[in-house]
Amino acid sequence: MTTDAVAAVAELVQALPQGVVTTDPAALEKYRHDWTHDASADTPLAAVRAEDAGQVQQTLRWATAHGIGVVPRGAGTSLSGGSMGVDGTVVLSLERMRAVEIDTAARVAVVEPGALNVAVKNAAVAEGLWYPPDPSSFEICSIGGNIATNAGGLCCVKYGVTTDYVLGLDVVLADGTLVTLGGKRVKDVAGLSLLKLFVGSEGTLGIVTRAILRLVPAQAPRSTVIAFFPTVADAAAAVIELGRTVRASMVELMDRASINAVEDFQPMGLDRDSGALLLIQSDAPGASREEEVAAIVAACEVTGAKEVVATDDPDEAEMFVQARRVHFTALEPRGAVLPEDVGVPVPQLPALLAEVEAIAQRHEVEIPVVAHAGDGNTHPAIVYDPTDPDSERRARLAFDDIMRAAIDLGGTITGEHGVGRLKKGSLEAQLGPDVMALNRRVKAALDPDGILNPGSFV
Amino acid sequence: MTTDAVAAVAELVQALPQGVVTTDPAALEKYRHDWTHDASADTPLAAVRAEDAGQVQQTLRWATAHGIGVVPRGAGTSLSGGSMGVDGTVVLSLERMRAVEIDTAARVAVVEPGALNVAVKNAAVAEGLWYPPDPSSFEICSIGGNIATNAGGLCCVKYGVTTDYVLGLDVVLADGTLVTLGGKRVKDVAGLSLLKLFVGSEGTLGIVTRAILRLVPAQAPRSTVIAFFPTVADAAAAVIELGRTVRASMVELMDRASINAVEDFQPMGLDRDSGALLLIQSDAPGASREEEVAAIVAACEVTGAKEVVATDDPDEAEMFVQARRVHFTALEPRGAVLPEDVGVPVPQLPALLAEVEAIAQRHEVEIPVVAHAGDGNTHPAIVYDPTDPDSERRARLAFDDIMRAAIDLGGTITGEHGVGRLKKGSLEAQLGPDVMALNRRVKAALDPDGILNPGSFV
Repeated sequence: MTTDAVAAVAELVQALPQGVVTTDPAALEKYRHDWTHDASADTPLAAVRAEDAGQVQQTLRWATAHGIGVVPRGAGTSLSGGSMGVDGTVVLSLERMRAVEIDTAARVAVVEPGALNVAVKNAAVAEGLWYPPDPSSFEICSIGGNIATNAGGLCCVKYGVTTDYVLGLDVVLADGTLVTLGGKRVKDVAGLSLLKLFVGSEGTLGIVTRAILRLVPAQAPRSTVIAFFPTVADAAAAVIELGRTVRASMVELMDRASINAVEDFQPMGLDRDSGALLLIQSDAPGASREEEVAAIVAACEVTGAKEVVATDDPDEAEMFVQARRVHFTALEPRGAVLPEDVGVPVPQLPALLAEVEAIAQRHEVEIPVVAHAGDGNTHPAIVYDPTDPDSERRARLAFDDIMRAAIDLGGTITGEHGVGRLKKGSLEAQLGPDVMALNRRVKAALDPDGILNPGSFV
Repeated sequence: MTTDAVAAVAELVQALPQGVVTTDPAALEKYRHDWTHDASADTPLAAVRAEDAGQVQQTLRWATAHGIGVVPRGAGTSLSGGSMGVDGTVVLSLERMRAVEIDTAARVAVVEPGALNVAVKNAAVAEGLWYPPDPSSFEICSIGGNIATNAGGLCCVKYGVTTDYVLGLDVVLADGTLVTLGGKRVKDVAGLSLLKLFVGSEGTLGIVTRAILRLVPAQAPRSTVIAFFPTVADAAAAVIELGRTVRASMVELMDRASINAVEDFQPMGLDRDSGALLLIQSDAPGASREEEVAAIVAACEVTGAKEVVATDDPDEAEMFVQARRVHFTALEPRGAVLPEDVGVPVPQLPALLAEVEAIAQRHEVEIPVVAHAGDGNTHPAIVYDPTDPDSERRARLAFDDIMRAAIDLGGTITGEHGVGRLKKGSLEAQLGPDVMALNRRVKAALDPDGILNPGSFV
């Protein structure tokens, strides 16, 4: 740390209440890493655990005055290196700002960014309401992080992603100005859609200190269908047929490698010989659920499913959903995992999955795939041996090749995890130079000194 | 027209195919006005009726080279002066770019901006699919205009607004660069959410030349409930109760003045003594529709409805919806109308409607109100005598006072029509100086020479 930086940090420690700023090396170790556990993560100068928006403003005014970068951080569950420590910067953690308040008449949640997704869900449920966005990590990820990445989840095939639920944001800009965008009104087209611009901006444009989130009536009881297909192409055909005819509330896919990894880890009687399975849910209201389940079963059968099981039993359903959710855990005994997050137009799913298989063979790595298939968003999990540098090298080649394949199929390098630091090298290949330039123009307009999340994608 | 401008326009006429550019005064009269019919509209230098994206690029390169402003125009149905003629500029009309193509496998429509909303709806229906956004003007408004204003409509209480359906855009920037944002993939978080930034930007940041719109399975048959309430406050209480318990696909409100205006115009047997009526639809699938209708009726009764009628008959339902839609036409015999478009958080509906009544009395103008009540978005219609300057003056005072009232109640000056030119004077009162400055920074970053839609809100 330079003498200047030492003096600057001392000034910040002094300016904020005791315990807000830490420079303790042991404490900083936690703020250095997110879920990518990337060894190249740097140790920050300090971590600020802000307690309110005023402290966020103070920190950014200080950062701008000293030209010191700020890496915003929610629960640190980024899978793309979005909140990794960066040399010479401070981490601004929102973990202490966790208030959640439900306004039942306006049907919104007013939430601080450090609140976990599950806390918002639970507070809504207590009032008979529902906050739909459900990343697989919903029990441990923060709303601030969800907003920063425009997080998706399992039910977004029917209910949309985070941006569809954000009605209002308080955002602290790089220079410490706090702006309020939107509010408790459902519709508002006054001025540019800046609210939507901040959603998904991964902390590069401002720091959210309060969000107003739209809630909907409680979800109806669900029925679950699990269907086994001879090939991934058959399963993909079923996904298209489903999308055309019913509004399923979950359409998840596991490929053969993924089914087998889960069966190895925890035998559940899944058919190991299937090319893929689909896990589909219906939450159609009342008596219509039975009709929708019948339509789902029919769509699977007409596209070649060899076995289709439907259940109304929540416990049995939970077992199947669990099979999908333990996917990452199931891979742990096999090595380290590089989690991918590419998306393609739904009709390109079979081509993408075939390509992933070819990439796995080419680089001699195992790549089981799970997918939010109804949205064309896949999570190939590249398994490698972390003690073998060549295995890791091949895994990284596969990681890049999968992004390339998605782009070539009219898709995206990231459907819901964000670009962060891990994928920034591939962003221009997707967007092209003109759109990259547009990204930079907007970034420069809002954060001219490059204070916010330096080293991130823009 | 200056000599320079004459020479510049001659150059453009020369550069584009015959018939694309017109400077004929009779033809320009059409391009001078939108639906605000504002007498202060200027006559443009010329109108360019672009036939493809290349001509849009050519026009913008020419405009940038000569420093001449460009006013983009769809079907010219703006109610906020968004496409009014501006002195010294050219109008760029997209009316000739009307192609609509449905990709059933990807479940999207690929649409040129001049295509009417109804053309997209019809093309989707032909494939058993549905494009939900339904502004009241859906038969005559263009998709380009819908995207420019982030248009809403009647079913958006359940199905969301235009931005929720835009997956991809081709946009020509001020300097003529064409950028492609998004695509046929449903989820994509790579880079800043520029796609969403262009939606609702009212032609101030770029010109959309192609849109990829998400489609959903066909809407199920609907049931309709019409409920009469003693007071507007009772009706608003019903709206809150409905929002908490059911997902109605339409929740429209007409106040007493509005009911009476419609009855005067075309007697339909609506209860003239009611404080307000609600027009509610359910499109819950299959057998559950009956249950949802029962829940809707119960919500109305528990909040004090004095009469509730439910019908499954599409013709009878259409008669009620017609009563809502003829609202503007019904006012024609009473004078000219200044249409408002303010929104508030749903619980503030009664306060807003009381305030509108007080404003009507204060300024001695009649202001019947219809509302997309489920979204808190109201359309007070200020009726005045266009031959009486004092009546018009009082109407404009009422127009401003209603915006002020909405802002004071935590609302917005525009829920779906846009700011355009009519409301730009009130935008800062809602957004405040810091958010206005942010709007200007983004505008300057994307259109540094101020070529696009000059004189609009930013």
